Amino acid sequence: MRERGGRFLSDNTAAACPEIMAALVAANAGTALSYGADDWTRRLDAAFAGFFAHDVRVFPVVTGTAANALGLASIAAPEGAIYAWEGAHIIRVEEGAPEFFSGGARLVPIPGKEAKLTRDDLAAALRAQPPRGASALSLSNVTELGTVYRLAEIAALGEHAHRAGLRVQLDGARLGNAAVFLDCHPADLTWRAGVDVLAFGATKNGALAAEAVVFFDPALAEGFERRRTRGGHLLSKLRYVSAQLLAYLDPGVWRRNARRANALAAQIGASADWALCYPVEANQVFLKLDAAQKQRLRAEGFEFNDWEDSGPDHTRFVVSWDQPDAEVAGLCEALRALPGARPENKESHANAAAD
Amino acid sequence: MRERGGRFLSDNTAAACPEIMAALVAANAGTALSYGADDWTRRLDAAFAGFFAHDVRVFPVVTGTAANALGLASIAAPEGAIYAWEGAHIIRVEEGAPEFFSGGARLVPIPGKEAKLTRDDLAAALRAQPPRGASALSLSNVTELGTVYRLAEIAALGEHAHRAGLRVQLDGARLGNAAVFLDCHPADLTWRAGVDVLAFGATKNGALAAEAVVFFDPALAEGFERRRTRGGHLLSKLRYVSAQLLAYLDPGVWRRNARRANALAAQIGASADWALCYPVEANQVFLKLDAAQKQRLRAEGFEFNDWEDSGPDHTRFVVSWDQPDAEVAGLCEALRALPGARPENKESHANAAAD
Amino acid sequence: MRERGGRFLSDNTAAACPEIMAALVAANAGTALSYGADDWTRRLDAAFAGFFAHDVRVFPVVTGTAANALGLASIAAPEGAIYAWEGAHIIRVEEGAPEFFSGGARLVPIPGKEAKLTRDDLAAALRAQPPRGASALSLSNVTELGTVYRLAEIAALGEHAHRAGLRVQLDGARLGNAAVFLDCHPADLTWRAGVDVLAFGATKNGALAAEAVVFFDPALAEGFERRRTRGGHLLSKLRYVSAQLLAYLDPGVWRRNARRANALAAQIGASADWALCYPVEANQVFLKLDAAQKQRLRAEGFEFNDWEDSGPDHTRFVVSWDQPDAEVAGLCEALRALPGARPENKESHANAAAD
Amino acid sequence: MRERGGRFLSDNTAAACPEIMAALVAANAGTALSYGADDWTRRLDAAFAGFFAHDVRVFPVVTGTAANALGLASIAAPEGAIYAWEGAHIIRVEEGAPEFFSGGARLVPIPGKEAKLTRDDLAAALRAQPPRGASALSLSNVTELGTVYRLAEIAALGEHAHRAGLRVQLDGARLGNAAVFLDCHPADLTWRAGVDVLAFGATKNGALAAEAVVFFDPALAEGFERRRTRGGHLLSKLRYVSAQLLAYLDPGVWRRNARRANALAAQIGASADWALCYPVEANQVFLKLDAAQKQRLRAEGFEFNDWEDSGPDHTRFVVSWDQPDAEVAGLCEALRALPGARPENKESHANAAAD
Repeated sequence: MRERGGRFLSDNTAAACPEIMAALVAANAGTALSYGADDWTRRLDAAFAGFFAHDVRVFPVVTGTAANALGLASIAAPEGAIYAWEGAHIIRVEEGAPEFFSGGARLVPIPGKEAKLTRDDLAAALRAQPPRGASALSLSNVTELGTVYRLAEIAALGEHAHRAGLRVQLDGARLGNAAVFLDCHPADLTWRAGVDVLAFGATKNGALAAEAVVFFDPALAEGFERRRTRGGHLLSKLRYVSAQLLAYLDPGVWRRNARRANALAAQIGASADWALCYPVEANQVFLKLDAAQKQRLRAEGFEFNDWEDSGPDHTRFVVSWDQPDAEVAGLCEALRALPGARPENKESHANAAAD
Repeated sequence: MRERGGRFLSDNTAAACPEIMAALVAANAGTALSYGADDWTRRLDAAFAGFFAHDVRVFPVVTGTAANALGLASIAAPEGAIYAWEGAHIIRVEEGAPEFFSGGARLVPIPGKEAKLTRDDLAAALRAQPPRGASALSLSNVTELGTVYRLAEIAALGEHAHRAGLRVQLDGARLGNAAVFLDCHPADLTWRAGVDVLAFGATKNGALAAEAVVFFDPALAEGFERRRTRGGHLLSKLRYVSAQLLAYLDPGVWRRNARRANALAAQIGASADWALCYPVEANQVFLKLDAAQKQRLRAEGFEFNDWEDSGPDHTRFVVSWDQPDAEVAGLCEALRALPGARPENKESHANAAAD
Repeated sequence: MRERGGRFLSDNTAAACPEIMAALVAANAGTALSYGADDWTRRLDAAFAGFFAHDVRVFPVVTGTAANALGLASIAAPEGAIYAWEGAHIIRVEEGAPEFFSGGARLVPIPGKEAKLTRDDLAAALRAQPPRGASALSLSNVTELGTVYRLAEIAALGEHAHRAGLRVQLDGARLGNAAVFLDCHPADLTWRAGVDVLAFGATKNGALAAEAVVFFDPALAEGFERRRTRGGHLLSKLRYVSAQLLAYLDPGVWRRNARRANALAAQIGASADWALCYPVEANQVFLKLDAAQKQRLRAEGFEFNDWEDSGPDHTRFVVSWDQPDAEVAGLCEALRALPGARPENKESHANAAAD
Repeated sequence: MRERGGRFLSDNTAAACPEIMAALVAANAGTALSYGADDWTRRLDAAFAGFFAHDVRVFPVVTGTAANALGLASIAAPEGAIYAWEGAHIIRVEEGAPEFFSGGARLVPIPGKEAKLTRDDLAAALRAQPPRGASALSLSNVTELGTVYRLAEIAALGEHAHRAGLRVQLDGARLGNAAVFLDCHPADLTWRAGVDVLAFGATKNGALAAEAVVFFDPALAEGFERRRTRGGHLLSKLRYVSAQLLAYLDPGVWRRNARRANALAAQIGASADWALCYPVEANQVFLKLDAAQKQRLRAEGFEFNDWEDSGPDHTRFVVSWDQPDAEVAGLCEALRALPGARPENKESHANAAAD
């Protein structure tokens, strides 16, 4: 049995939080119409409209890849393009799902600092690879390197994208963590910033398996249901996904979970300021650790991933909503005690706050 | 509250059974590795190997369409063909999922009596539409009309298919009901009868959302994991699906649930012998009812579907694992009391048993 | 040098006719704009509009498969269906090109007598396999068995198809032969009978390599040019294809060539009346010959194909526009002299004429 | 009638050269087996084996896009990637043909100086976008900016690509011009430098419509014929394409045509040394001309394209194999007489020769 250490591999290792589990159990009473005609699913559009302060069409799915690819396929044609940061989840991890669902749309990888694109980055990419056919800009917020787009940054990208004729999709696998960091309304992160289609993620932040494609322009949902079935993503007993989403929308759930994870991550970042690869803005901490340091941490029972894609000796620590306090405290202590650790620097970006 | 009547629309309207819900709750303790590296998922191959008395590779998914389409894409090439009964779920309901996942394999619909194909039906289809490229025979057992292939029937089809160079896929959305009806070992229905790839269904028979692609020849699983991710069908917290499957494999769960549903359906069939469209061999009852009869039943609170695809005035009643006894008793009584009902005929196929 | 016998394998073995070769040579003078901006291609819409007495959009390609698949992809969606006779070229020979170009539309094979569908055949298929998404009826005229749809037959099919929401595509690889047999205007075979998109064939009837996709409703051509480029079917020096088509539209070319081939085929049919599988209505003759008869004809130098797909002992003889008279005379004589040949029957369908 | 000026828009505006036209006319005698069973096509493998001094499998097609996309689809899987210079024809002009034919392989655009990639450029791209599944490096030689890869440059790329597990495809639309510039054997440009699959172009250099997919490793041609038919790229009267290719392989044709075009382009480059965007190494000249200069040249009857993709005020002049000497002389004179022209600089890269 592990007496110390802790698992910082992914927020996908977390369990489901009590409120969501309770909602699931409650949803298991009696019969319910299948394929989304149930009462839970039928309430989703209204519930999300409240959440986002905007009319929406919402379709529950169970993976982020499905939410991304189905959403992108709604706005990018087979001969179109999808512009994204070069290390985006849709580019690096999803095994060509966007191409598969869109029928061949081209992913255009764009270099960007700390996983974020600027309007200039996008403009350069559009010049180098002009869009043909219906095309999309895909952003992730929180980004894949744990940074968070500021509202003005997304809005600038959204505006430029729209002017260039692109639609904007947001990979919101950790949308809650971004909203907490920015202390903003979910609307600010999405439709107010020009997002047309959202992959809304709840799984990492406390659900069992619950994501949703959210259309802020209902016209874009045309044909979506057929595409979802064709992709095998319409669950027969959909109430179990919708019930999770309904429970998740409570700020006492999503905001609480995200706030806790973000705060713990900030503690870790502050303890290893000298090693930070990127500012800690949500629940991920990227540290540059040498072989001896990694070896020592692992010997002490800490689990984390090497992240060489992002740079030599980079590692990633992810804090989950249910991470034990003791694990975080232990990790902070272990980091401070590492050979090579330097005293904390109060000016550092470990303490980044949204400006 | 509904005082009478009952919901016989689909076994997808059922809740999850207690054992499976308990397993889900139990799985929610602590962290678990993501994307299938968890302890539940890692036990699946062995658990299913025991269940089927054969080495298998097992991949959990959450929809039958995904299980069918991903399995078929493993054995049918883009230029190949998929032969199936003309009313098969993969042909009629899944919005082209097999074509989508296989990259264009052609579905060849074959007419067949009571939703079942004979070796001659298959032979005729192969002559009329010879396969080009890797191709498949897809069977459903239980069939879409509630009938059940006998072991010799599947074996004959499997043998003929293999001789013609086809692989055999089985849509086992209601495999448990078929095994109960035939009182046979799951092996008899699958690899012993020539099935190469199975879409194993648990959702309709008591799970929340748990299906699996089961390969009886591990070589066919080559490339499967990439295809699954590309299709958006790898759940990040896969433990929650795998835990359902592990619980479901207990005969005290799957067999009990299927037995109950089958038995209740047989009661309904016996009560409306004069109206039966097909023998009642599992948990579905197809009745030919005129407009007045349908109207009366619905006025009494019974919910069921018109099923005109299968014939004029056809209707479908599906019994779920958790169907209240009272609903079934009420339906039997209501059917017997319908104007036009005839006394029960003990020789009828309402009492069909596997030969 | 072959002193006797003759090659009756396919009209694709023929050379190009002098007028078309001359047009090609004439087109080879000086420069011409590329990718269809040349003077020949720019005249096509007007020339075909005259030919068909209807406004058209015309796109030259060099294979019948491309003409069929690109045309079908313009009217059938990925989730739609394409209904066709079960032995249609698009189903049996083109290696899934319609699925490939349409992104997965389902080919629904329909049985039909002598390669022709009736309105009832189509209605039955639509009941058994109802269309989902934009769908098409595809007909071949001349058919794959050398028979010719009468105008009323196509019109009835076209009307039924349109009423069911389908668009109608015509595989006109041998359209000239059909028009000659029916002694009708090309308009009668196409838009007047409800055809929306035509694969216009010239290659078999005297061109080197010249086919065209002809849209009778210009709105259907939306997106065609992008799809053509994506399929690799936009020739850089397109003048060479367009020049062939312009030359071909002269009745002194297409009608003369088709008339000659049809007439010679009729002679062959008349000489082997006793062996005819189908009425000889264009330039193909299908004969039922036993092994000894086939062997003897081949020993005498006649080349022809076995055609077992159509029936046991079936063979196919195709007459090309440039078939030497002597080869036809020799074949007629050889057929009459075969052991088992019966005297000619003047009532037979060997002398079929359009009614 | 144009008395002066000249058309420098594209080598696709050229006619076919006499030897190829003669071969086409000669091929038009008598019957020939269809779909590539003819004597011309059957000689292709041997003829190209001689041309390349290596065993090859050769498949004639009629567009460069088809040759590229079909070749790439043979070496890149749906989940794989295709690495290419960011302005490559396959990326910028072909409307997603590589994605379409490969079933979704991802095109990874790589920046590179003067349209050429270095081993470092490739290495960086592989780090930023690592390949998943079978993947390819695609090069163009001559490049899209008229430059030519040196043998050592291609070899270095080929070696690096192979070490990274990629196959190498070459877009040889102007392969003849590259061979002439480098004064090398076609083998040096292809298999000796690591090229696995070639899109061999003849159209731009004197054919009517003749390209070929050439496999230097016959194992890679597995499945090619089915894919070609499925794409609509198997011509029924294939002899007419093969005859062009056979005639083209004569150095008295391909080398003569390419040499003439290159030499004339060099004259133009030398006349406008001050305006050159890139070294003139084949038959394309890119000049930076201001609005007044462009206007004046066009007023004098010179046709050429703006090429802003490559840079502001960039223009492209292409010399065809049949460009009249007088047009080139006239253009040289006009360029020298332009306001802003500077005296020729003998050191300049206008006189580039292969090192």
